[in-house]
Amino acid sequence: MKVALLAHEKFPDRAKTAVGVLRYADYDVVAVLDRNNDGTRVSDHVPDVQDAPVVASMSDVPDDVDALIVGISPIGGAFDESWRPDVRNALERGCDVFSGLHYFLGEDEEFAELAAEHGAELWDVRKPPEDLGVADGVVDSVDATVVATVGTDCSVGKMTATRELYEAAREEGLDAAFVATGQTGILIEGEGIPIDRVVSDFAAGAVERMVLEAGADHDYVFVEGQASIVHPAYSGVTASIVHGAQPDHLVLCHEAGRDSVHGYDQQLPPVESFVDRYESFAGPVADADVIGGMLNTRGVADDEAAREAVADFADAIGAPADDPVRFGPDTVLEVIR
Amino acid sequence: MKVALLAHEKFPDRAKTAVGVLRYADYDVVAVLDRNNDGTRVSDHVPDVQDAPVVASMSDVPDDVDALIVGISPIGGAFDESWRPDVRNALERGCDVFSGLHYFLGEDEEFAELAAEHGAELWDVRKPPEDLGVADGVVDSVDATVVATVGTDCSVGKMTATRELYEAAREEGLDAAFVATGQTGILIEGEGIPIDRVVSDFAAGAVERMVLEAGADHDYVFVEGQASIVHPAYSGVTASIVHGAQPDHLVLCHEAGRDSVHGYDQQLPPVESFVDRYESFAGPVADADVIGGMLNTRGVADDEAAREAVADFADAIGAPADDPVRFGPDTVLEVIR
Repeated sequence: MKVALLAHEKFPDRAKTAVGVLRYADYDVVAVLDRNNDGTRVSDHVPDVQDAPVVASMSDVPDDVDALIVGISPIGGAFDESWRPDVRNALERGCDVFSGLHYFLGEDEEFAELAAEHGAELWDVRKPPEDLGVADGVVDSVDATVVATVGTDCSVGKMTATRELYEAAREEGLDAAFVATGQTGILIEGEGIPIDRVVSDFAAGAVERMVLEAGADHDYVFVEGQASIVHPAYSGVTASIVHGAQPDHLVLCHEAGRDSVHGYDQQLPPVESFVDRYESFAGPVADADVIGGMLNTRGVADDEAAREAVADFADAIGAPADDPVRFGPDTVLEVIR
Repeated sequence: MKVALLAHEKFPDRAKTAVGVLRYADYDVVAVLDRNNDGTRVSDHVPDVQDAPVVASMSDVPDDVDALIVGISPIGGAFDESWRPDVRNALERGCDVFSGLHYFLGEDEEFAELAAEHGAELWDVRKPPEDLGVADGVVDSVDATVVATVGTDCSVGKMTATRELYEAAREEGLDAAFVATGQTGILIEGEGIPIDRVVSDFAAGAVERMVLEAGADHDYVFVEGQASIVHPAYSGVTASIVHGAQPDHLVLCHEAGRDSVHGYDQQLPPVESFVDRYESFAGPVADADVIGGMLNTRGVADDEAAREAVADFADAIGAPADDPVRFGPDTVLEVIR
């Protein structure tokens, strides 16, 4: 499937979804829309992902594109009206539009009409299914090995770590599944449930349903974690994933140098304390142990310093660790398989 | 305000909301609807609450009733069609109907039409407001002393303990507020937000908003807890309340003899472990300590055995404890004030 990625004025550093799709999705990305970087290429900005031209608008994208993906998410998940011509252009040519915004494109009157008129699909990935229920607490019944990522904070690399573990497992011939719980993961995988948008009572149940389905067909299930158990706003999402997934193993994700909660006036507890925090939180529901760590070293200048940071992190948590992007996920995968 | 309580076939033991309203609400209860107990009185079933006749249907209720409250909540929160004539009768005489069901009466075509026609209000207390947002993590900024109840499981008496503490505080002349987070608490208080129905991302934010509002006007804020940090389905709700409220103090609620999660095949950890569980969970967000315990001894035969159970519970958690219904909440209130 050929896709274009909308990332106006934010590519690449504030376009987490766009970069995730470029790195991990099976889609063939034919263009990135960023009016501030018109005329450059993806490879001018991000190494090691598929390349594509950066263009100013949807009208610069070849006709055979199948879908436009909104690859950025402003705080609050609002729709920026400056994107309207691009979405309109896509729909008018029958091109589907996928979005992870809180603002649902399917409920925008103009977009809904254009989509119907031109046979295009509007997929609001952040809209959970209507038929969710409470968790039964029965994930233990699946034979699959369930691995969930957990983190010290938001945006430390849980989706990336999960995706890298999943892909590496598949490459080694393991029968692995990826359970997507957030918009980027869902856009990459093509399915999943945005747990942060599920009503609290059903959040663990939604995770349980996905893990049961994936576990019925696969030997290894990698569950994308969200937020953090110490987050002042989102710890409920984390709790629902850890208890809903009833994991066998946890992988602790952290970003080198992160010492406070992003966007909040709150210090993070020492990284080593998170092993016991997550294990004792999970304990009454699932006997899960932190079997490895993933350190995001994007802010560390060179590989040598990054290796040192990873070694320190491994020491702190008392488990093997790696940077899944810089060095690959094999050290941790080795413990899981 | 004069109210009738619908509790067909469930009064009193499986009518938690009806009994809560009888015990704590300012409403004048003029009748309880229970077709299985027609002709009896509330005092035949429940001591120490306001008395009222038990009748078979809404047509037996005096004309001057202001509201019918659905005082039972079947598993799943469905509407039982056998109640339809009662709700219809209420609306046709212009009597408001309040409900904590998952099934929203306001979205029932017949009820919505009858309410509009007769000027009656349909209040679905389980429907959260539309304008919620993420928590800012700023409850620390209020001067009020914030006390949240937490529990070892669902239905151990958190709402009751919170309400008893709040009422005892008011009786002592303290300027106290009650923050309702579930349907029974909301029906009693007349306002609040059902946190279990709020999307996960905004659950802590909804609690924070209520605590900030209450804390601006009062010296003590008593926050009704929900579920339990070890619950396989609802721990996300608990997490959002503990972090959203940023409490100064926690009161641990438990039911004597409860040793497994109600409705689940899961043992509860030792009750003494909950002190550290809740304090270390709250810790990174709020420096909250478990300053007391509330033991529900409804299953304990006599007062002497109940006193022993309370003493054992206090020993286990290393803090003063009481049964707020059997013996009153003063032992714990003493520590808070």
